Order: sequence, then structure tokens, then C-alpha cells
Amino acid sequence: MKLQFLGTCAGIPSKQRNVSSLVVQMLQYENECWMVDCGEGTQQQLLHSSLTLSKITKIFITHLHGDHIYGLPGVLGSRSFQGATEKLQLFGPKGIKEFIETTLIISNTYLRYPLEVIEIVEGEILTTEFFVFEAILLDHGIPSYGFRITEKDAPGVLDAEKLKQIGVAPGPLFKKIKAGEKVFLENGIEINGADFVGPRKKGKIIAIGGDTRKTKKQNLLAANADLLIHEATFLHKDEQLAYEHFHTTAKEAAILALNSGVKALFLNHISSRYSHGVEELLCEAQTVFPNTFIPNDLQTYLIKQNNDVKTM
Amino acid sequence: MKLQFLGTCAGIPSKQRNVSSLVVQMLQYENECWMVDCGEGTQQQLLHSSLTLSKITKIFITHLHGDHIYGLPGVLGSRSFQGATEKLQLFGPKGIKEFIETTLIISNTYLRYPLEVIEIVEGEILTTEFFVFEAILLDHGIPSYGFRITEKDAPGVLDAEKLKQIGVAPGPLFKKIKAGEKVFLENGIEINGADFVGPRKKGKIIAIGGDTRKTKKQNLLAANADLLIHEATFLHKDEQLAYEHFHTTAKEAAILALNSGVKALFLNHISSRYSHGVEELLCEAQTVFPNTFIPNDLQTYLIKQNNDVKTM
Ligand SMILES: [Zn+2]
Ligand SMILES: [Zn+2]
Repeated sequence: MKLQFLGTCAGIPSKQRNVSSLVVQMLQYENECWMVDCGEGTQQQLLHSSLTLSKITKIFITHLHGDHIYGLPGVLGSRSFQGATEKLQLFGPKGIKEFIETTLIISNTYLRYPLEVIEIVEGEILTTEFFVFEAILLDHGIPSYGFRITEKDAPGVLDAEKLKQIGVAPGPLFKKIKAGEKVFLENGIEINGADFVGPRKKGKIIAIGGDTRKTKKQNLLAANADLLIHEATFLHKDEQLAYEHFHTTAKEAAILALNSGVKALFLNHISSRYSHGVEELLCEAQTVFPNTFIPNDLQTYLIKQNNDVKTM
Repeated sequence: MKLQFLGTCAGIPSKQRNVSSLVVQMLQYENECWMVDCGEGTQQQLLHSSLTLSKITKIFITHLHGDHIYGLPGVLGSRSFQGATEKLQLFGPKGIKEFIETTLIISNTYLRYPLEVIEIVEGEILTTEFFVFEAILLDHGIPSYGFRITEKDAPGVLDAEKLKQIGVAPGPLFKKIKAGEKVFLENGIEINGADFVGPRKKGKIIAIGGDTRKTKKQNLLAANADLLIHEATFLHKDEQLAYEHFHTTAKEAAILALNSGVKALFLNHISSRYSHGVEELLCEAQTVFPNTFIPNDLQTYLIKQNNDVKTM
């Protein structure tokens, strides 16, 4: 899996950091790309990455604040201009439909690909062959969702060697055996498929928070996640400010990761007051949860199967 | 006068050029700043200039295509976030009001300064103490305006030395003399104020085109302009393409400048197909109208009183 952070700043852009957007690229699933949030300038940031808009087939919007959505009309229009034909699904809170319709109609923008806009409520918002996408309502003054994406467990690997030993060659029976069913071999002997299949491969859990202040709902979002991507707008010394503005501090995010059994934590949505350097934020979080990362804009991470994080 | 080109690209941004926006800074009028068009990423471009959003008090939108307006919600919101309190006037074609209202309301954006949105039709759209702003409807498929900004003529300078020679000292009479009125001096002699005032100073004409294909209306826009800023989306070998897409070629813009008695021509809204280099466009235009400039993004020009252009 690859994570590309396109914008990591809160509220308004700075010279160093643009407003919110990130792309999750599922290398093992035909490079399927999901974008989460789309602040102004996201299409410009993409020009400096290896991604193109046509690769993105799903966009998830956590909430409707401008720094998370003002890049949408440009992304949608330019995706068409660049010749994309594949369907795009856009998920977001109530209001996203009117935002898209109004901006596209007023600007006379016609899309040459099918666009499906889905206004979400809390709960399961999408299930595909390989993933379940859930939205969890957080605490941000306006509806703000975190997205919990659960990869379905994969069936165990068929032990072809062990089957060969008892004289079963690759063929139509393999499928049933792999499914763990009981089957009769040609020689009349019954075997239990489950005995010839390795353990199921546990699916990954990716949790991506929208803006929020501390709330118990964060625990539902983050529980046992392999990867938690969370806002850390403030340092903990500004805890009161964070509370008043419905945001989270670096320490709070780290405690959340620690208590939730998270494997790796990425912090974004950094207040521009820290744009001179995020060392203090990083230090604060790592003191609680060592495996924390604060990406710069355009930084890309490769997440290996064992959850090791490789900065690219 | 200072011209700052924030985005000079047509349609979609490239790595080298962002979508349309420019700022005219009236140095001799308390640095009053006007923005013309506001494509996505304009606020990010401004971060790399010496301007701040609070300095901009008027925004003129030529037409509602996305590459000319998608940066507006961000500019309006960030201007407030940065603490601007001075009123902002926004002029644009019918539809601009709904665009602004919808995007600000849906994103829960409250402005702390007064915003006046004025939907324009062809004709005079604003007169201030020093300027007359006219909108001229061009030919772009959707309503697209060019803006002709005429500086009012300034009264001639009072010849204080000449007055002193006939014994008139600075005082209440000066105002009437300066206005060219006939006045009686204390000694009973009548003088004609007009004889003691230099020639009126002709105001400048700044013409800024919106997207358009060749049309006679361009002549109304450009006539005798000191400065013409015009789109040149295509090379003249792509004349047919320009016509079909309602755009102008570099040669057409140059001919317009030549025939209109323009003093200096700036070409922008360059198709991204030429983003590798604009030498050919520049050469094509300069062959017809030598005093042509094609700015890069963020390039700034100082226009002197005698219309000499200094690249900064
Ligand atoms: Zn927010
Ligand atoms: Zn246009």
C-alpha cells in the first residue's frame, strides 16, 4: 500500500504546506486509488506526484470545510479534460451534492465520465469485493466523518504440495478444497478441504480521521487499525484552543493510537503556526507512540504487508 | 502601475503555469489593488508574491469558466481568516452570486469583512473618484467580458510661479484659478484661471480581455488603450481550433493591438500545449506588434507614466 500526502496543512495554505488531501494507493489491488479530502490546489499538487487524476476512482470527503473541498470542482473538471472515462464515486456529507452541482453547472463544466455523488450518514457506506468502508461521525462542530476501511480477510493459501502427496493434482476440485469444503476424491476417499488450506489472511484496517476534537468515537475509528491517519492541528500546550476549535492535539492523537492498538500513526492537518517546523509536534507524539510520522507535502510512504513503513 | 501575473495558463494548470489570475496595483492611488479572474490556486500563488489578500479591494471576473473562478471561495475565506476588515467588491457575470453564496454557505464560511457581489451587464459597471470601469461583452460561447478601465483626466498643474509674478500669493483664490475660473484679484484686475494652469493630464486606459474569439467588440475594448492584456490561447497556425473553442491567437491579439493604437500588449491564458516554451507565440505576436510581452507566472511589471515597461 502507498500513502501520498498532497496537503498536510490546516485551514489556509502556507508556502510549505497545502490544504488537506491524501491518496491511498492499493498496490495489490490493481493500483486502485482513493483520495481523501480535496482542498484547493490538490490538482496542482498532483502534478508534482506520479499520480494522474484518471487513476483516482473514489474520493472520500470527511467534512465540508473549505480547506477540505475547494479543490473538488477543479479535480472533477480536469479529470474529464485529461480524458478520463472511468466512473468516479464521490462520498461526502450532506451538502456535497449541491456543492458539486452548483459549481459544475455555473462554470459550464461537463464531465465525460460518469460521476456518482453519494451523501453519507454514519455506518457502512460501501462494500466492494475486497473492502468494507465505514463512516464514523466525529466531533467537529459540523458533521465530520472518519473513514474506517477494512480489507476483507483473504482465504488461506492452498497447500498444493500436501495435496500432491495424497495424489490430488491441480484440477476442478481445487476450488472446492480451497473453499474448505469436504470433497470426494476420484478414489472415493473423502477429505476435508480445510485441512489443506493455510490460515486465512487477516485483512488490514486503515483508519483516516476527519477533523475532530477528542471524542470516544475516535476509538471506534481507530480500534486495532494497522494504520491511523489523524489530524493533529495543535500542540498539547494548546489543548484548550484545540477543544474550542474542535481539533485534536498531537499528544491526544498519539494516546488514541496507543490505546487502540494501532501499528503506525500518521499526523496531518498541522496548523500553519507550526509551518516553520514540526519537530515539537513529532516529539510530543513519539513520546507517547514512537511509530508516529508527520509527512511533508508530497511525501510518499510504502506500507509493507508487515506494516513496516518505508519513507520514499 | 504594477502588473502581477499570478496565473497565465488556459484551462488546466501545468507545472509551469497556473490558471488565470492577475493583479493590477495602482501605485499612485494608495496601492489600490484589483484582481482580475481567480482560478484555483490563486491564493497559493499570492503566497509567493509581495501581495496579501487584504490589499485587494476589488475583484473582476471576466467569465464563469472554472479556470477563472474556482479560486474565489478560497480567496474570500482566507482573506477573512487573515484578518482583513476592509470591504471587498466582486464583479462578475450573472451566476457569480449563486456560486459564491453556495460555496460559502455549504462550507460554513463566515466572512468578517463586508462582501458586495455585483452581477454585471455590458456597460459602465463602476465609477470611482479616479476611474471608470466598463464591461464589454466578447464572444466566448458563455458571457465573457473584457474590462476597460479609464483613469479620469487630472486637472493641469497650477503655475504658482507665474501667479507670483503678477502678485498673487497662495490663498483661497488658488482653488478657483486651478479650476480655470475667471477671478477678480484684490487689485480689481480680472484674470482667467485657465491661463495659469498647465494642460490637463490625460488618464490612462487599461484594457483587460476575457476569453474570446475574434470579434469586433475587441476593438471597443482595446481602442487607444495604454495597456492591453489579452488572451492568446493558440498560435495562428491553430486559428481554426481557436475559432472553434472561442479563443484568440497570438497573431490576432497583436493585430488588435496594432490597429487599436495600443502602447503595450501583454498576452496570457496560454494553452498548456505550449508550456514547454512560449518563444513561438511571442515571436508571432512581436512580428506584428513589437511591444508585446508574455509573462511567466509570478512575473511583475512596472508600467511607468510614459508607458515604458520595466520587467521586475
Ligand atoms: Zn475542519
Ligand atoms: Zn474560458
